Parts: sequence; structure tokens; C-alpha cells
Amino acid sequence: MFMHNKNLMYTVRVSEPDPKLAALMLEQFGGPQGELAAAMRYFTQGIADEDPGRKDMLIDIATEELSHLEVIGSIVAMLTKGVKGKLAEAAEETTDLLANITQGNGSHTLSLLYGGGPALTNSAGQLWNAGYIDSIGEPTADLRSNIAAEARAKIIYERLINVTPDPGVKEALGFLMTREVAHQKMFEKALYSIDNNFPPGKMPGMPQYTDKYYNMSQGDGDARGPWNQGEQWEFVDVAFGQGPVSGGEGKPTVRLAAEELAAVEQTAARTKSRTDVNPVTGADLGAGPGAGKTTTTAGKV
Amino acid sequence: MFMHNKNLMYTVRVSEPDPKLAALMLEQFGGPQGELAAAMRYFTQGIADEDPGRKDMLIDIATEELSHLEVIGSIVAMLTKGVKGKLAEAAEETTDLLANITQGNGSHTLSLLYGGGPALTNSAGQLWNAGYIDSIGEPTADLRSNIAAEARAKIIYERLINVTPDPGVKEALGFLMTREVAHQKMFEKALYSIDNNFPPGKMPGMPQYTDKYYNMSQGDGDARGPWNQGEQWEFVDVAFGQGPVSGGEGKPTVRLAAEELAAVEQTAARTKSRTDVNPVTGADLGAGPGAGKTTTTAGKV
Amino acid sequence: MFMHNKNLMYTVRVSEPDPKLAALMLEQFGGPQGELAAAMRYFTQGIADEDPGRKDMLIDIATEELSHLEVIGSIVAMLTKGVKGKLAEAAEETTDLLANITQGNGSHTLSLLYGGGPALTNSAGQLWNAGYIDSIGEPTADLRSNIAAEARAKIIYERLINVTPDPGVKEALGFLMTREVAHQKMFEKALYSIDNNFPPGKMPGMPQYTDKYYNMSQGDGDARGPWNQGEQWEFVDVAFGQGPVSGGEGKPTVRLAAEELAAVEQTAARTKSRTDVNPVTGADLGAGPGAGKTTTTAGKV
Amino acid sequence: MFMHNKNLMYTVRVSEPDPKLAALMLEQFGGPQGELAAAMRYFTQGIADEDPGRKDMLIDIATEELSHLEVIGSIVAMLTKGVKGKLAEAAEETTDLLANITQGNGSHTLSLLYGGGPALTNSAGQLWNAGYIDSIGEPTADLRSNIAAEARAKIIYERLINVTPDPGVKEALGFLMTREVAHQKMFEKALYSIDNNFPPGKMPGMPQYTDKYYNMSQGDGDARGPWNQGEQWEFVDVAFGQGPVSGGEGKPTVRLAAEELAAVEQTAARTKSRTDVNPVTGADLGAGPGAGKTTTTAGKV
Amino acid sequence: MFMHNKNLMYTVRVSEPDPKLAALMLEQFGGPQGELAAAMRYFTQGIADEDPGRKDMLIDIATEELSHLEVIGSIVAMLTKGVKGKLAEAAEETTDLLANITQGNGSHTLSLLYGGGPALTNSAGQLWNAGYIDSIGEPTADLRSNIAAEARAKIIYERLINVTPDPGVKEALGFLMTREVAHQKMFEKALYSIDNNFPPGKMPGMPQYTDKYYNMSQGDGDARGPWNQGEQWEFVDVAFGQGPVSGGEGKPTVRLAAEELAAVEQTAARTKSRTDVNPVTGADLGAGPGAGKTTTTAGKV
Amino acid sequence: MFMHNKNLMYTVRVSEPDPKLAALMLEQFGGPQGELAAAMRYFTQGIADEDPGRKDMLIDIATEELSHLEVIGSIVAMLTKGVKGKLAEAAEETTDLLANITQGNGSHTLSLLYGGGPALTNSAGQLWNAGYIDSIGEPTADLRSNIAAEARAKIIYERLINVTPDPGVKEALGFLMTREVAHQKMFEKALYSIDNNFPPGKMPGMPQYTDKYYNMSQGDGDARGPWNQGEQWEFVDVAFGQGPVSGGEGKPTVRLAAEELAAVEQTAARTKSRTDVNPVTGADLGAGPGAGKTTTTAGKV
Repeated sequence: MFMHNKNLMYTVRVSEPDPKLAALMLEQFGGPQGELAAAMRYFTQGIADEDPGRKDMLIDIATEELSHLEVIGSIVAMLTKGVKGKLAEAAEETTDLLANITQGNGSHTLSLLYGGGPALTNSAGQLWNAGYIDSIGEPTADLRSNIAAEARAKIIYERLINVTPDPGVKEALGFLMTREVAHQKMFEKALYSIDNNFPPGKMPGMPQYTDKYYNMSQGDGDARGPWNQGEQWEFVDVAFGQGPVSGGEGKPTVRLAAEELAAVEQTAARTKSRTDVNPVTGADLGAGPGAGKTTTTAGKV
Repeated sequence: MFMHNKNLMYTVRVSEPDPKLAALMLEQFGGPQGELAAAMRYFTQGIADEDPGRKDMLIDIATEELSHLEVIGSIVAMLTKGVKGKLAEAAEETTDLLANITQGNGSHTLSLLYGGGPALTNSAGQLWNAGYIDSIGEPTADLRSNIAAEARAKIIYERLINVTPDPGVKEALGFLMTREVAHQKMFEKALYSIDNNFPPGKMPGMPQYTDKYYNMSQGDGDARGPWNQGEQWEFVDVAFGQGPVSGGEGKPTVRLAAEELAAVEQTAARTKSRTDVNPVTGADLGAGPGAGKTTTTAGKV
Repeated sequence: MFMHNKNLMYTVRVSEPDPKLAALMLEQFGGPQGELAAAMRYFTQGIADEDPGRKDMLIDIATEELSHLEVIGSIVAMLTKGVKGKLAEAAEETTDLLANITQGNGSHTLSLLYGGGPALTNSAGQLWNAGYIDSIGEPTADLRSNIAAEARAKIIYERLINVTPDPGVKEALGFLMTREVAHQKMFEKALYSIDNNFPPGKMPGMPQYTDKYYNMSQGDGDARGPWNQGEQWEFVDVAFGQGPVSGGEGKPTVRLAAEELAAVEQTAARTKSRTDVNPVTGADLGAGPGAGKTTTTAGKV
Repeated sequence: MFMHNKNLMYTVRVSEPDPKLAALMLEQFGGPQGELAAAMRYFTQGIADEDPGRKDMLIDIATEELSHLEVIGSIVAMLTKGVKGKLAEAAEETTDLLANITQGNGSHTLSLLYGGGPALTNSAGQLWNAGYIDSIGEPTADLRSNIAAEARAKIIYERLINVTPDPGVKEALGFLMTREVAHQKMFEKALYSIDNNFPPGKMPGMPQYTDKYYNMSQGDGDARGPWNQGEQWEFVDVAFGQGPVSGGEGKPTVRLAAEELAAVEQTAARTKSRTDVNPVTGADLGAGPGAGKTTTTAGKV
Repeated sequence: MFMHNKNLMYTVRVSEPDPKLAALMLEQFGGPQGELAAAMRYFTQGIADEDPGRKDMLIDIATEELSHLEVIGSIVAMLTKGVKGKLAEAAEETTDLLANITQGNGSHTLSLLYGGGPALTNSAGQLWNAGYIDSIGEPTADLRSNIAAEARAKIIYERLINVTPDPGVKEALGFLMTREVAHQKMFEKALYSIDNNFPPGKMPGMPQYTDKYYNMSQGDGDARGPWNQGEQWEFVDVAFGQGPVSGGEGKPTVRLAAEELAAVEQTAARTKSRTDVNPVTGADLGAGPGAGKTTTTAGKV
Repeated sequence: MFMHNKNLMYTVRVSEPDPKLAALMLEQFGGPQGELAAAMRYFTQGIADEDPGRKDMLIDIATEELSHLEVIGSIVAMLTKGVKGKLAEAAEETTDLLANITQGNGSHTLSLLYGGGPALTNSAGQLWNAGYIDSIGEPTADLRSNIAAEARAKIIYERLINVTPDPGVKEALGFLMTREVAHQKMFEKALYSIDNNFPPGKMPGMPQYTDKYYNMSQGDGDARGPWNQGEQWEFVDVAFGQGPVSGGEGKPTVRLAAEELAAVEQTAARTKSRTDVNPVTGADLGAGPGAGKTTTTAGKV
């Protein structure tokens, strides 16, 4: 059961309204690396996890992320407070209002559609969707997803800090960024508390394909490093035109029943390309009467 | 520049058509953990990376994932080959055809809408969207995202293998699963080849918040583990009702210009809730004449 | 700041695992009328509302909806617990597992992709998106949206109850349904606590168009009722072919600068339809040589 | 059957092209509160409604909304007519054209991608999706959704009017806004023409939970009003840490079959967190050799 | 201005309710090749087209497609009429109801979420989105898009007819299918009424690249046909490893200002991969103590 | 199997970084008419096509489009290289950085969220989704879709060229545009190589509806042209209010079983609109005590 304490987790002090900056902040409210995605990622995992310690940690952090969502949402609300009132009350000349909300980067949509309240979109107005959440219900994968998600969120906060002139906003972003670092450390500890967490899951790989590095991109720029050299790797230069790495004929096959085969052949006959004609085409028609060489028609029309 | 070798990377041998199984396989063609998402994740990173070795590796693996996309797509095409022909040529009684495509789990949509060709949807028919790709252009985050993505893809293949009765499909899935393990190892090597890759990015955390574990979820089930105990952690029991962890008043503030304040106050006055009345409401009206106690109207209407 | 109490708001007692029923329950976890949409609708409004009483209510209810999200998510987790373990550990014959997860209605995706954890999708696997949230930052509109949202959620719970055989699930759904009724009453009270809440917002309508009912759909089935009869309505039978209700020429106009006009005319000339020819078309070509009457070509090619 | 009268419902007179203003107008063409969403909301309800009067009204209004869609689309087409021609014919210097389409707020996408025609996106370029439509096929809910939708649409028009300097556009927006007010009144009449429309649907609530107000958000800012005080409410201060409001153990339970339990236990064992070690983690490795205190490894590696 | 005639364009006579068939029919109501997409494709084009004849045709057909949308929606409403009533009134035993709505292919979602009314989703429950509409405001492209869209819609109707046992539904689908054929012919005529409609638009291609066919996919299966042989084509076998077809160095370049270069170099240094070490990785840690050969650590930790 | 040659297909030479121009270029990287959509359209068709020549062509072109994706992605990477480094390293004053990334049209999101790497969004930040791909597995439809897609892509490149001042970018765009023309010609040849490709598919139309042109939009602007005049067309002026074109009663019908009918009637009774009252509504309440004429209440409350 969730409860709410009316104090923010972090005291937000914004210097002055700035709808343009507000729109940037949405990146961490309703963006892919934002706080709702974080909270829901851990919450959906925590509900279904059987391990008591990990479950506790996941819900602790999910709850903290909801508290962060409130912090960043409150920043947005403060930054838009000025324009919100003016727009609702038509407190300015129309042209001033228009200029005010169309300074750039999405602040017009934030003002017009969402009335200055924090919206579950990113800074470009893209609606949040649950495709941002990559929980799959296997801790040896999910914890790695969480580690990565925290790393990404840390970077987005770092970038926002780099472009934010308002000292109060900057400080709050610093807090939020720091907590992502702390969360990443927690998830790392939880992952490595699972014995034999690599490879993830239960099933071992096929030994003949586990240690091969296939050089699929070739030319000036080919390079070697610990990811494809050393005793644990077999480096394979794939030759263009070679057969499958599995051997075999390199074409997909399936056994069809007789009536299936008949139907397939019927389709093939109906949609067969004739290679013995050079048909006049719509493009030929469209190119106009003087289009010349491409219209050498065959006997088709 | 990409090139295509007409041999598959892995020879696919499907026993017989099975549209129901085909629909499951879409999970790795157009699903969130599937091969297109993988290929595009690494490709978008590789194009913009400045480090020559990492760039080479990213493009190598992106290219391999495109080759995997072709393998899984070919499996789908083989599994649907029977129903595709029959549907196109109306080669069966209508009721048999109907039964054939509505056996369950999305095979009807695969047949009707996509004509049996592999579609960029997951097994539930959800359209692939680029929200599945989490590249952000910072290697210390992106490599962690890649590690996690490979772990997830490995698990989805493992689950598909567990439910696939066709031995040829099972074997091809085994190859694809194994390569995800190999890729994860490569990305791990690449991440740890970057000195000081933690915390990701450049900016250090605020020291006072880096090592705290906030116990936000409390009650029977609270637990301790390496993620919140030991010398590197300060475990903080957050009390319900306490002030912000940052100190301060716990409310967001912003300084408004006079005309902004006037507009805000005007909105507040216009939309003020009266707490001194108990108004009749639409629900009261809707509850009907005998609805009783809730309709104690005040002087509002 | 949010906190979490490890007790559920409502004790969930599920009789036995049932992945098919679990998939239905997702409708209220990650569906459009589900608990996340509810929580986020009220939370985004509450953060930006200036009225202290309404703000308090919005956050109270948002917090309760998060607690409901946990209840419905826990129901899903219990209903999938059986298949989840079997799939992860391959604890059954492949064909039994396949049959188990493809009983119908999305349970295959829930199992394969989400590993049996509650997912932010509806019962068809459609990813949750923030387009479900209709908050616009004006209380006289938002409260009406909330009233409607609670009414919808109530109905979806009612339908789920009607199809749920498990008594423990049924009871928990009854609780959740009832709370939607209670919330609707709260939002009704809050709406009617605002004086002059109709029309919503500030600007009055144009008097000549406020009370007209335009009969745009005509024929057998035309009907009258309180929505278009009585002294407050002017019923207008729109005649097919009549001019605009505003008067005027009925065509959109704009004044173009000379160089704009020139460019528009240039485009018009370039893409002009000739009405003096009967051109051969691609369809004519495609219809084959004996297609007859449609190929009366003009002098175009 | 729909028919089209070549006269607009309202004569649109635009002063001069303005692609920036055009982009704002898209909010009501392809935005969530726009005319397509309105038309489709009522149309999908009307098709399936059994009540003759309500069905007639729904189709009347749906048809009018399609006519509004044409009005707002024509405004967009007029506002973009200048840039459209110039871009298609390259009628200006490249740099002037570039400046022209990148004045801000989405006009670049409207020009480049949609060629200046009205697009089914909102003012930020977000594609319209059917998640905006909340029809659920129960009139006591759907009519409330319609009332709310009209209220929201009214507000968006009001905001657009407040920022529109063009008098012809302003006037047309005034007409459209006014009609939303009229429609809201119609839907209100239709809702209250249904006896006992509250609670919506058929099933009564559980009496013990119908009148309780749970105070879930606590602290400085707690407030009382008609939504939680008065004889119809029981105000419940939820204590942090208390048990479920339903009583019971507060944990979800399910009865597993023996082989299900075995599989669950196997998963739990495989993914168990060890709490007796402090493992070296990836973050520890990444922090570099001098990272100090966090690397107190246990016997794990 | 749109008007509505209460007669359907085509009289729909459904034999008996069948929710499973209803779900399939959604493909043409809210699917990508369905009637809403068609209507909106032509409507958005027609509003902005300057050519009077083409504009008239586009609006004629858009209006007809709206009338088709009503026909297919009415089919869905008839097919779901039985289950809709039962679900709303709980007129059956719970288990019968559950069985009734979970027969397969999306009918559960249609019943539970949409209450049996036609929904703007495809047959898999995927929400309609405006990405299905490809209008770009240039008639020489848009008319080709329309031709293709009609061809696709024709095929989907053909497939639906092939699986529909109900004779009344089959007949109505036949009408709808036939009209797509007629529309395709109209759009073909309109396209070829534009002189010099190929290449589309205004700008000619670069002559050196207009007639080349690049053989990018090579091996067993290479083929020739009118699309790559004959006098109008130059067939180019691209050699793997060759330079760019444009000549030049084959690498992207940009001139950076000094401070830009400095920043890029700083990033490169910070995120440099060391190729002289074989670092211990997270995967190595996770593989457990006996994992052997992969853990040959270098001096990194 | 795909392979990658480290040379670009076309040598890209960008003059100087320009994040604003980069954002426009995204239209062809991750936009609906962009290169990923093209590659995936042909690739999904090619995998399942049975005709050897057409299959070869589809994969050849799909592979070339992937190579184009790399070209346009490299342009984006070059154009953002400057701001990317500065943002990552905070190499400028905060206010300069802020100004730099918020010049307009999406460059802020490209910088903040994607770190300057090419992103699979369009120029407005809309995430790419597979709804852009219209492959349906029938060559007589798919080839027409491909022809149309190439025509659209050609136009978008033409528009980008018209607004691009950078000569190196302009030249590369010219190459990409030209190849779309060449591809269109290839697909035209392939379509017309299929005998009797019109109507698409197998089933003939119903003769009575194949050649009719329904004049559904009427009034000043009605026009005639080759699409509705000439011997192959029967021009039908649809009268407003007429019956269905099919004859019959113009209403949808279905036969219900007795218990279905009972349930439907029960719903109808429960949700019946009373037309004999003029109920007080929520709007009446909200309009305030002096709202006058609309509150003539009937005996309802």
C-alpha cells in the first residue's frame, strides 16, 4: 500500500518561471529515461519476485522513484506557473502570449494542451509508452536492465544540469542524478549476490558458438580489442559469399502437405514475374511521350 | 555499406507449417527484445561513436543481428507457408480456413493482415516502436544497455526453446540464443576496457547522497543484503511524515513577477473550491429521488 | 514523498493459477481504464493545482490508485505463478508448456515476454501509453474527466467480475470497483464546489450558436428528447446543400503575397489534372490485353 | 451513409499565411482533444447504441464534429498555403526557406513531411492514436466521457483563441468553441434522461467501502471539503504501517499444485540472493583501482 | 460540411452473433488498411489540394469511405450484440460468459474493454494510429499512395471473404471489396491525368545514378528480369569491399571549430577503450569461480 | 546473411556542425518515409516471396536502403558532432549550451536524449513505429505500395534539398533522392511483369459496383474528369436521403437467440432515455443559480 507524505523528498526552489526550461525537464518526467519509467520498471519486477531481499529492495527503490517523479513534476509546475495563469486568464496581449508560448522546444504544447501541468511526454512531446519498460521477470536479466537504466538516467540528468542556468533547479537535478548512481550500485550488488548469474537464465549456450567473434563488418577500420582477441575468443573473418556458419544449404526449408503445396504453387503461378518481356509501366506512362528509351514495350499491352 | 549474401547465417529446417508457432516466433522478429531492436540499437550507436575499436565492434554485431533477423524471419515464413497459400487461393472450405487461422495467439492477424509474411510486431500483434531502443550516445551507459539487452534476448530465446516442439526450429533458436551470450561477453569486455566507467558519464555525485539507502517501503518483509548493508552503505529508515531529506520546507517555490502572480490569483479565485457548502452533484441527481443522505444540498442551487 | 507499507490495501486470496484469467486482469493494470492511468491522471493534476483542498484530494486519490495498482498486479502475479515457474525451469514437456501458454487471449505474450509478471499492457497486449491520460490543467474540465474516468473504470471492473469464477479474485475486484464509485462521488463534490463551473473555463460562448441543435443525421430514426427539445433549444434541420450556418461564401480564403501566389500557381500548373483526355493508366496496363473498354486511350502516350 | 456538402459549416477567412500558427491549430485537428477524436468517440458509440433517441443524437453530433474537422483543417490549409507553394517550387533562396519553416513549434515537420496539408498530429507532431477515444459501450459511462471531452475541447479552443492574432481565425475558433458548449449541454441532458444513472452500470458497490474517504496523503496541506466531510462520508486516517483495510494478512496468496510449487522453488533457488557476502560488482570494477571502500570483496570471486 | 443519411450505404444482414468473427472484422474498421485510414487519407489530401477536379474526387471518395466505415462498424455491432447484452446484464453463468468471450483472437478485449461496440483497433487489438496515413501533400506521390492503399484494402477484404461463413456478411464484404477496385481505377485515372507525373515532384534525378541497378545481394538466387536488364538499366555488381559508388574516401567528414574539436577529443579520451588489457568483467564475475578461461585478468583491478 | 563494408555507399562531406539541420535530416532516418521504413518494407516482403526474380530484387533494394540509412545517419552524426562534445563535457557556459540546443525544431531532444547520435524518430521527435510499413504479402498490392513509398521518399528528399544550405549534404541528398527514382522504376517493371495484376489478388469484383462513381460530395465545386466520365464510368448522383445503393431496408439486422434478446432488452430498459422529462443536469447545476431557462426541472429529482 502506498502512502504520501506532503513534504517533497527534496525541497525545490525555482528562481523564476521559464516555460522553455520546463519543456526540457519533461525529459525526466515522461521521457524514456525518466522517473515514471524507472518506478514502473522496479515496481512490476518487485510485485512478482520471489526472493524476499530483492523484492524489498525493488519496492524501496520504486517508491523512491515515485518520490523523484514528484520532485521533477514540481519543478515543471513551478517553471510554467507564470505562463499558465496568463494563458488561462488571457492576462496579456494575444501577440505577447503567442510569443511567450512559442519560444521553442515544445513549450507551446505544454502550455496549450496540458495547461502548464507536468505531462507524461518527453521534451519533444512524444507520449510516454510502456515500451520503455523492459522488465521480463527473470532477475539475472532484469537487474542488468536496471543497472543500465540507472546509468542512462544519470547521463540525462548530467546533460540537463549542463544546460540549466537556474541554481535551484540545478541543485535538485544534482540530487536526482546522485540517487541514480546510488541505485545503480544497489542493483549491481543485487545482481552479483546471485551465484552463477552469467549466462543469464538457466540454459547453457551451444559450445561451438559461444566464443566466436564474427567479423561481419570489414574494411579500413577493422580493429581488435579485448572483445575479440585473447584466449577466450575465436576470431572468424566471415567471407562474403561463404555458406552458413552452421553448414547446410543456407536456404530455409519446410515440408508441405500436398494440398498446401498445391496452394503455394497456385499463388506462385498467379503472381509469377515474366522475365521475357519488358512491359510498359506506369512510370513509363507518367514520364510523358518524349521519355524515350524506357518505353520499349514488349507484347504485353 | 551493407551487402547481402544469399546464404542464411544459419540453415533453417522447419518440419511443417504451424501458424500458431509462427506467431510466437514474432516475439524475436518484431518484439521489444527481438533482432530488429538489437540491430538498430548497435547501429545507431556505432555510427556516432568516436572510438575506433568500439565502433568496429558495434557495427560487426549490428550486422550479425540483421543476419539473425533474416533467420528468425525465415522461420516465420516457413511456418506460415501452408496457411498463406490456402488463404490467398481460398483452397479450403471457409470454415476450415477460419478454424485454421483462429487457433489462438495472434495467428489470425499474421494471416489476414500480413499474409503470412513476417511482421514487425511482437507475438501479441503490438507494432514495433523505436521506444524499444535506448541508445543515448554515451558509451558508459550504452554498453550497459547493450549488456542488459543481450541478457533479455537470451531469456526470450530460452523461453521459446522451452515451448517449441519442432526440432529444426529449436536448433536454430539455440544458435540465436547462444550468440546473445557471446555478444553479452563482448559488450562486457568493451565496457570494462573504459577506465573509470563508473559512475557513467563525467559528473560526480553529491557525496551526501551517494551512499545512502532510503528504506521507503516498510513493514513485514523489510530485509537486508549487500545492497543496503556493509560499510559502503548508510541505511536510512525514512519516517512517514518526516521532512525532506534535503532539509528545507518541503514545498516547491518559485518567484513570480507581479503580473504573473495576478494571473495565478485570478485563476485560483475562478476555480476555487468552496468548502462551506455541500453542493448537489451530478451523481446525486443520477442516483435518483430515493438516493437519500447524499443530497443534503446547501444554498448552491 | 511517497512511502510504501508492505501490507496490501486489500488482502488478495487467489484460489489457483490461471494464466488466461491473468491476461484479462491486465485490463485494469495496464489498460486504458486501469489503475496506472487513474493514478497518473490525478497525480499530474494534483502537482499543479493551486487550490489547497482539491490538491489534497487529488493526491489522496492518486495514492490510493497506486495502492490499487499493487492489488491488481498482485492478482496477476498469483494467477501466473504456476506457469511462470514451469516455463523458466522447463518443468514440463514442451508440448504441454506450449498448450499451457496458448490457451488464448494474450496469455502467451504475458508468459513469454513478461515472464508472468504484471505488464503495462491491456488484455490484448497493447502497450500502455500516456494518450490515455486527459489532464489539461483546468479544474472545471479535469474534474469532469475524472468523473468520467471513474465511471468507466467501474464498468470494466463490473465486467471482469461477471466473468471471473475465482471467489477470491471476485471479492478483490468488488473492492476495487466500489472504490471507483466512491472516488466518482468525491470528484462530483469537488466539481460542484466550484461556483459557475459551466461552461468550463472563462470565456463565454457566442450566443447565436449556444442553444442550437443541428440535425445533421436525417431519415428514419430522427428522434427528439430533452437534448434537442424544450425551451432551451432551437432545433435546426440542416438542409443538404445549404450554405454555411455562419453565412458567407462557404469556402476558405486567405490573402497571399504576390510571390506566394506565384508559387501556388506554379504548383497548380505542374500538378494540374487534364480533364480533356482519357489516359491509359497503370490499372489499364495491369488488366491485361483483353481488358476492353477501360483502355480507350487519348493522345497522352 | 455520409454525404458531403461543398460548403463549409462555417466560412473561414484567414488574413495571411502563418505556418507557426498553423502548427498550433493542429492541436484541434489531430490532437487528443481535437475534432477527429470527438467524431470517432460519438460515432463508435452511436453505431452500437440500442436507444433510438440517444443513437440519433450521437450520430448528429458525430456528423457535426466531422464538419468541424473540415473547418479546422481548412484553417490549417490556408495558413500553410504560402510556404507550401514555395517549398514545392523552391521559390525562395534555400536559407530563406529554411528560416521560414523552422520558426518554431513543429511548423518544420508540417511543411517537410506533410507538405502543408493538415496532418493527424497534435501541435508537437505526436501522431493521433485511438487511445484518445474512451468509448466503452455503456451509456452511463460513455455520456460522462462525452461531457468531459466537450469540456476539454472547449478549453483548448479558449486557449487557442487567447493566442491567435488573426481575427478571421479567432472568429472561426469562437464558433467551434461555442458548439462544444452546446454539445456538452446535450450530453448532460441525455445522461440525466437515464433513470438511476449513478452508480454507472448495474452492480451496486460493497456498502462497507462506498462512503469511506481514505486519507492517504498526509502532512501540512491536509484539508477538508465537501468531498470528504459531511454526513455521507466516513473520513479514515490511514496509519502508515497499518494492515489492509480489508483485514487479513496483507499478502497475496495462491494455492499451487505440487509440480507448480516445485518449479517455483527451483526458480527461487536458482535466482536466490546471497545476503552473506559482499560481492565485487561491475560498478566496483568500473570505479577503478583507487575506488576504495566499496570493493571489500567477499569470497565470491 | 458532412451530413448523414440514416440509411446505410449497403444493407447489412447478419445471420447470428459471432464475437470471434467480429474481432476479425475490426481489421477493416480500425486496422491499417481499414476504412478510417482510407477516409482520412483522402480527406486530408482533398482539403489542401488546389486542383478543382482532383479535390472533388478526393472528397467524394473520402465521404464514401466514411460510409463504408459505418457499414463495417454495423457488421461488428451485429456480430457482438449477443455477448454484449449478456456481459452487461450477467445473463449467464460466469464460466459460460468467460468461455464465450475467450474463444480466441481478440474477442475478449472487444467485449471487456469496448463493450462490444466497434473499436478503432485492428484484429489484434492494436490501436489505430495516424502513422497509417501517408499523405504528403504532393499529388504525384499521394495518388500513387492512394492506388496502393486501395490495392491493399482490396486484398484484406478478399481474405476476410475467404474466411467468413456468414452469407450476409460475405455479401457486404463483397460490396466493400468491389468499391476498392473502383476507387483504385479512379485514382489511376487521376494520376495519369497529370502530365509528366514521373518522376514525382519537380526535381530531376542525378543522371549518373538514375539507371543503375546495384546488385547488393549476391549468391545462389541472383536473377535478372525487366527491373534490371534491358537497355534502360546498367547492371552493377557491387564488389564487397569496394569503395563508395560516388568515389571519395568513403568516410563521413565534417569541419569542426577549434573548441568543438577540443570537446570531441575530451569525450574520446574519457571514453577510450583500452585495447592493451583484458579486463575482468561483470560477466566474468557472474560466471562464478570455476568459470575458468574467461577470467584472465589484466592489471586493471 | 548481411555483411558490412566499412566504406559508405556515398562519401559524405559536411561543411560544419548544425544541430538544427541535423534534426530535419532525421525525417529520412527515422521518419515514416525514411530509409528504415523502406529497408524493412522490402526485406519483410523479400523473405516470404516465392518468385525468385522478385525476391532477389526485393533483397537487393532492401540492402541498398540499409546502406542509405547509414549515409543519412552519418550526415546526422556529422551535423551534431560539435554540440555533442560540448554537452558531454560541459565545454561551454550553461547559457550558451542552452541556447545552442534550443534553436528550434527538435534539436534539443536530439541533443539531450540521444546525445547527438541519429535517432529513430522523425524531425518532430515522433518515435518510428512499424505502422509505417504496409507490406501485406501479396505482390500485386505490395509492389504498388513500394512504388508509392519510393514516390513519397523522393519528394521528402526534394524538400530537404530545397532547404539545405550545406553543399556536401545537398549533394548526398541528391544521390539518395535519385536512387528512389531508380527504385520506383524497378518496382514498376516488376509489377507489370505480373500478368493480369489488376485488380490485385484473385477475386473479381461484383460487376454491378465496379464501374460506378458515386457523387457523395455535392455543391459548387462538383467536377468531371477521366476518373468519373467516359464510357467506363457510370456517374451516380447520390440523393441525400435515398435508400442504400444495395436496395433493402438500410438498417443492419441480426437474428438473436431468445436469451440473447432478453439480455439486450434488459440493457435497453436499464439505459433507456426518458424523453418525457427535462431533467436538471450537472451543467444546469454548474451554471449557477441565475442560469435561468435551462433549469426547468421535471419530476426527476
